[in-house]
Amino acid sequence: MKEFRTLRYEPGKLTLLDQTKLPREETYVDLTTVEAVARAIETMVVRGAPAIGITAAFGIALAQRTGVPLAEADARLRRTRPTAVNLFYALDRMARAAAKNADLDAEAQAIYDEDVAASKKIGEYGAALIPDGASVLTHCNAGALATAELGTALSVIRAAHAAGKKLRVYADETRPMLQGARLTAWELMRDGIDVTLIPDVALGHLLYEQAIDLAIVGADRIATNGDVANKIGTRSVACLLYTHGRPFYVAAPWSTIDRTIATGRQIPIEERAAEEVTTLGGVRIAPDGVRVRNPAFDVTPAAWIAGIITERGCTGKDLARGLTEQASNTDESAR
Amino acid sequence: MKEFRTLRYEPGKLTLLDQTKLPREETYVDLTTVEAVARAIETMVVRGAPAIGITAAFGIALAQRTGVPLAEADARLRRTRPTAVNLFYALDRMARAAAKNADLDAEAQAIYDEDVAASKKIGEYGAALIPDGASVLTHCNAGALATAELGTALSVIRAAHAAGKKLRVYADETRPMLQGARLTAWELMRDGIDVTLIPDVALGHLLYEQAIDLAIVGADRIATNGDVANKIGTRSVACLLYTHGRPFYVAAPWSTIDRTIATGRQIPIEERAAEEVTTLGGVRIAPDGVRVRNPAFDVTPAAWIAGIITERGCTGKDLARGLTEQASNTDESAR
Repeated sequence: MKEFRTLRYEPGKLTLLDQTKLPREETYVDLTTVEAVARAIETMVVRGAPAIGITAAFGIALAQRTGVPLAEADARLRRTRPTAVNLFYALDRMARAAAKNADLDAEAQAIYDEDVAASKKIGEYGAALIPDGASVLTHCNAGALATAELGTALSVIRAAHAAGKKLRVYADETRPMLQGARLTAWELMRDGIDVTLIPDVALGHLLYEQAIDLAIVGADRIATNGDVANKIGTRSVACLLYTHGRPFYVAAPWSTIDRTIATGRQIPIEERAAEEVTTLGGVRIAPDGVRVRNPAFDVTPAAWIAGIITERGCTGKDLARGLTEQASNTDESAR
Repeated sequence: MKEFRTLRYEPGKLTLLDQTKLPREETYVDLTTVEAVARAIETMVVRGAPAIGITAAFGIALAQRTGVPLAEADARLRRTRPTAVNLFYALDRMARAAAKNADLDAEAQAIYDEDVAASKKIGEYGAALIPDGASVLTHCNAGALATAELGTALSVIRAAHAAGKKLRVYADETRPMLQGARLTAWELMRDGIDVTLIPDVALGHLLYEQAIDLAIVGADRIATNGDVANKIGTRSVACLLYTHGRPFYVAAPWSTIDRTIATGRQIPIEERAAEEVTTLGGVRIAPDGVRVRNPAFDVTPAAWIAGIITERGCTGKDLARGLTEQASNTDESAR
């Protein structure tokens, strides 16, 4: 089977796999301007917190090449999506590189390469938490399609699978944008990993049947106390796992940790267009004129999370303490 | 606005509003044979526990008129859907009427009329539980479309609205068949009741925002201990409401109570076709060949339910005791 690449850069051109068309079409789009990059993030041609950050970094590199003032490019990209902190992490880093007159192509590529290395380490640390024979639920897509390569939650699953553990993965469909049905099921089937698709609403019943042993998801922003913002529905998944006495893990690169905020209450939650809910594939599925709420993320309290896995290790159940230890494990001056 | 009728019988002909086509088309289908009635139940042209029971009763009346042996008609209808007990309640009643050579049209119409009366009483008892100004979540459709008229959960909402209480109703879309988006939103908009549609996954965030005060849903079968089988996803809703300290109520006619089973573990859960999950409006939304689980119902434990409202009253938090009191309130010999 042909390998796919979520994003790929050569000087002057960023190529993205168009995730809005998966799984029906595997189409790539070439972007050469920062405005095109900003629109690709807004319309979810590319999505997933780490992938958004890397894409934005390449957007800054493209801005410099096309003569767009970097402050303007930075401001445009910051307006695309508010919740994932990786976007702001990458833009901060590109601004520091620009201030030092560093090579922006090289800096963006470094962010990409570090993400690959982080995904690999997350897989190694996380795989130890997955028992042989486990049934693992994942929500949304925290896979290769959400990162440079490999993924976060799916890197853990890939590493456990590669270690010879027999796994059954349940992917919930993740309304309204169906990242679980369209992206996670597609990614795992390509890798030959056993995957079963369920509607989001079916998780309670599967827990009642004792068909799920644990859940692992990605993250868009993690507060100092361990509260986690992630794709809408994550809070429901965590509440159900916690109530049924099953561990719920979060896997994310360190660039997802926001040490400037104390709790999840400070994380802005993006609200997206009603049409994502009222239409599907151009088909209207709700009455004309109905009022809609469509928050794109939610916050899961630290108390429901059994551990956060980053490239620096795995926290214990005391997430705040674990994250503080990880923060001091590595030189933070680059932040 | 033109009134709709979920089901309507005249001797020899049952007319159903085709719920698979709502909200885009308001189409009625005329059925004259028991086989056509059985297929309409299986394909969800008509759905909702009380409406299924009433429809099956008229199916027996049609069987007699068309010369189909009643035992054969009964067996065919019992095979349509396993979870809602109202189906078996109605068929048992029709069999008793047939054994007495009673008028089967009249018996089926009596089941219809009693359902209307039950819905009205449920509305009256339930409205007292809804504070003025409340934001009320409902799951799936427990409305006029799920009963003869008025509904169960939606009868409570209609009665509170009619009493002048200001309400905001949140209808979750209820994947995979979207009864919330397609039916509940449509019904409430027609009645001029304030309704907001949300994806199922958004409930956790709305509770986090303190935007939901309580939830009320229907039921497909209620065990003696108060465990409730209802549309898939109900267990998640109840778990979230319970965890967030908000009351979760169930409204159902007495014909939904199954006093022959002790707990929800004895309730059979229907599993439906994968295509309900993998395609939408003919559009494929998941990879070809993906494995799917599609349970149509789940069981909510009595411990998460604040009260069950029937036409006989409203239980307290001790559901088992409340149901036993209601059972002895009325002569049960007809069962």
